[in-house]
Amino acid sequence: MSKLTIALDIMGGDHGPPVILSASLRAVRQHPDTHFIFCGQRAIIEPALADLNSSQRERVHIEHCEDVVEMDDKPASALRSKQDSSMKRIVELVEQGKADACVSAGNTGALLALAYYRLKTLQGVDRPALVSFMPTAGNHKVLLLDLGANVNCTADTLFQYAVMGSVLAEQMTGKQAPRVALLNVGEEDIKGNALVKMANQQLKQTPALNYIGYVEGDDIFTDYADVVVTDGFTGNVALKSSEGLAKLVVNEAKRFSAANLWTRTMARVALPLLKTIYNRVNPDQYNGASLIGLRGIVVKSHGNASADAFYYAINQAMQEARLRVPEKIKSKIETVLLEQL
Amino acid sequence: MSKLTIALDIMGGDHGPPVILSASLRAVRQHPDTHFIFCGQRAIIEPALADLNSSQRERVHIEHCEDVVEMDDKPASALRSKQDSSMKRIVELVEQGKADACVSAGNTGALLALAYYRLKTLQGVDRPALVSFMPTAGNHKVLLLDLGANVNCTADTLFQYAVMGSVLAEQMTGKQAPRVALLNVGEEDIKGNALVKMANQQLKQTPALNYIGYVEGDDIFTDYADVVVTDGFTGNVALKSSEGLAKLVVNEAKRFSAANLWTRTMARVALPLLKTIYNRVNPDQYNGASLIGLRGIVVKSHGNASADAFYYAINQAMQEARLRVPEKIKSKIETVLLEQL
Repeated sequence: MSKLTIALDIMGGDHGPPVILSASLRAVRQHPDTHFIFCGQRAIIEPALADLNSSQRERVHIEHCEDVVEMDDKPASALRSKQDSSMKRIVELVEQGKADACVSAGNTGALLALAYYRLKTLQGVDRPALVSFMPTAGNHKVLLLDLGANVNCTADTLFQYAVMGSVLAEQMTGKQAPRVALLNVGEEDIKGNALVKMANQQLKQTPALNYIGYVEGDDIFTDYADVVVTDGFTGNVALKSSEGLAKLVVNEAKRFSAANLWTRTMARVALPLLKTIYNRVNPDQYNGASLIGLRGIVVKSHGNASADAFYYAINQAMQEARLRVPEKIKSKIETVLLEQL
Repeated sequence: MSKLTIALDIMGGDHGPPVILSASLRAVRQHPDTHFIFCGQRAIIEPALADLNSSQRERVHIEHCEDVVEMDDKPASALRSKQDSSMKRIVELVEQGKADACVSAGNTGALLALAYYRLKTLQGVDRPALVSFMPTAGNHKVLLLDLGANVNCTADTLFQYAVMGSVLAEQMTGKQAPRVALLNVGEEDIKGNALVKMANQQLKQTPALNYIGYVEGDDIFTDYADVVVTDGFTGNVALKSSEGLAKLVVNEAKRFSAANLWTRTMARVALPLLKTIYNRVNPDQYNGASLIGLRGIVVKSHGNASADAFYYAINQAMQEARLRVPEKIKSKIETVLLEQL
């Protein structure tokens, strides 16, 4: 493939098509070598394209889809009842090789189910993982997985997550032999539950990975590791509780600022700084989350994503497509499995 | 008991006896009706008591203990090899009824093992839990448990945690029928792993608790619940990852402040505000952690605790003793178990 084609779910997300369209049109303008397939209701999409010039317009193809997967639809209903949904269509386009990657800000559970069902996992991968980069000290970033795709993990699943995470981190950041760590409640070998202890043993015996052992929750943000691996239950809680604390800090600053003249003055100066930091550290808006381990590229933008966030998610999908991430994961999995023979 | 007696482990903590002694002497001065048993090496303790007046000095009893449990000792070695440790002694004093509560800033694993082994759990409680109050919006606080006492939980354990947490929150905050929630990856009934689904079913059928269902990680900090229940693995990660993010915010502010004159000026004003907020929201220093579900009161101050933090931990132990928390937990467990017959 010389030119990329990216399929976009125009209907997904809490803020609906206007925000998604605004980000999508920005991507069309910014990437003159890329084709886009806008999936969704033609009556909504068509008028928005009027602003594009003719060469831009030529790179946009509309796929009309009647159905919309709502944010509160059950995954099973998205799979069964909404046969003509924009979310289903973007995944199908990747499955059929008509798109190199797809992006949605819609219902996470439905997107996971559709992607898993249609694209299937790569050989050697039991379950896909939802991953995202998180902020760490000094502009570094760390890949955290799984963020909730799979709440019932085995040690094998964690092991596969480590391999996949290592590939994605290396590809996306350019860092050779990224440091891979397993999330635990302590750093000593005796700490943890049976699941992490088994995965730890497996990972220690894998020279193809730069496995550095256990890390605790606070080490996610200290640039101690490049990839932090955990099960989907724990990863989801780690992501959301740190989001929650970031929000609390900002809300407290606002509340504090109303107290009296001095704190109001202090806050007027402090709040912009705090907002800058919040935007940098808030995992919520930090980036799109990728669904990896599948035979195709699926990027999930946050449901509450702004136009900026959706635009970054499109860029992430393009980058993964250019770097052929699924092929790289496939090849690494094969290497590691051969090592274990 | 009319007058309280509190046993203090003078040797524990990262900063050693000076910080612990400073906090302990403050407690002696502030609480003229309370007796204290200082456990540790007499040669270290005795000189520090010189500053007390005679009526204060009369309320302090020294129990000389030769051994010190180090921060990196394995729990098994603390149990077996260090027979004459200050940490063991404080637990024994509670076990023998010579103290109403004990406090240590030492090695968490060793304290857990000693407390569990010597004090035993209350009838109907399988495993003790490590709990702490966390900050939420608007000066409220939420009780989070388990923070890592038990990384292998069953649904029954989670259920017992809910009962114990409800009692502790009601006693310590005075709030009637505190809202109890179960930590999960989503709020719908279909979300989560088998463990939380089973516990959810059990909790729904327990009128003696004000069970409000599932909460996600970010809801810990939103004053949505008064008690958030989870297994020790997830709870530990939630606590530490939010600590980690709080530290990142402060470090980023410092780094940012060095950038140029304008940001330096902004930061000079913003940092004190940020520090105030950090001190309020940082779960790390927020409070002592209590070990509940045992036949006695054990409070664990953070290993890195300042004299202030250790002083608050002593106060927490006194409050639990005054309120007879273990008896209240015992009685609630009996009520709930009868309800289930």
